[in-house]
Amino acid sequence: MANTRKATKKDLPAIYGLVRELAIFEKAEEQLTATLADYKRDFAAGVFEAVVLEEENEIRGMVLYYLTYSTWRGKMLYLEDFVVAEQHRRRGYGQQLFDAFIAAAHEKNCAMVKWQVLDWNESAVKFYEKNKATIEKQWWNGKIIF
Amino acid sequence: MANTRKATKKDLPAIYGLVRELAIFEKAEEQLTATLADYKRDFAAGVFEAVVLEEENEIRGMVLYYLTYSTWRGKMLYLEDFVVAEQHRRRGYGQQLFDAFIAAAHEKNCAMVKWQVLDWNESAVKFYEKNKATIEKQWWNGKIIF
Repeated sequence: MANTRKATKKDLPAIYGLVRELAIFEKAEEQLTATLADYKRDFAAGVFEAVVLEEENEIRGMVLYYLTYSTWRGKMLYLEDFVVAEQHRRRGYGQQLFDAFIAAAHEKNCAMVKWQVLDWNESAVKFYEKNKATIEKQWWNGKIIF
Repeated sequence: MANTRKATKKDLPAIYGLVRELAIFEKAEEQLTATLADYKRDFAAGVFEAVVLEEENEIRGMVLYYLTYSTWRGKMLYLEDFVVAEQHRRRGYGQQLFDAFIAAAHEKNCAMVKWQVLDWNESAVKFYEKNKATIEKQWWNGKIIF
């Protein structure tokens, strides 16, 4: 049985490795401009938190999240990244990690949780619907990269 | 000329008032479940920040934002809410507030800024494009309200 626990600074290389693995898989490695040193500084400053899933002394997945604010609902926990290593999928690790994320939101007295999913990612949408999520399709993202 | 400045706790009633005005306009007042007391507690805890636009001793608009994290880019400032009071539109207040938001992101050494816009809101999309934003249409929002 895999174990989920709050990430500490010692887990940041593994977390960064999972992000990098996914960026390479998505053929977008050049867009990963944040470094492990950035992760260390920003984690220490409390900008984000994470839960890791560990089995056989190996980190096989993670959820990375931070506290945000809904002007209508109040405190909200935002799931920024959610990764299970490719070779460890279909074992329920994703559900364990998502449950840990929801538990973290309750611990912080959040009124809601939020995240994003790509419109073509049917299996992810199905997973979230199974978890009683509402999927909203009418919002576009705006961004400016400096 | 209107003046923009960082919000202090004294501005929270006016900020809450602008959020409420918009919720009523959108016929969604029942979804505004956060109270002014919540805003006061959460602002004091540093969960969000805001810039207000003031003219003739009256707050006529605001941007409300918080620090988040892109696992690819690093620190990111997220624009959660952006309101100019109905009767004070078309005077450039929106641009002044958006500029103040971008300036706040630079002050915090953020790598990018992000926000959302409704797909039918053509004038807002045009405004953001004029500000050299990228508009992404392939993401859906997932949420669970507790």
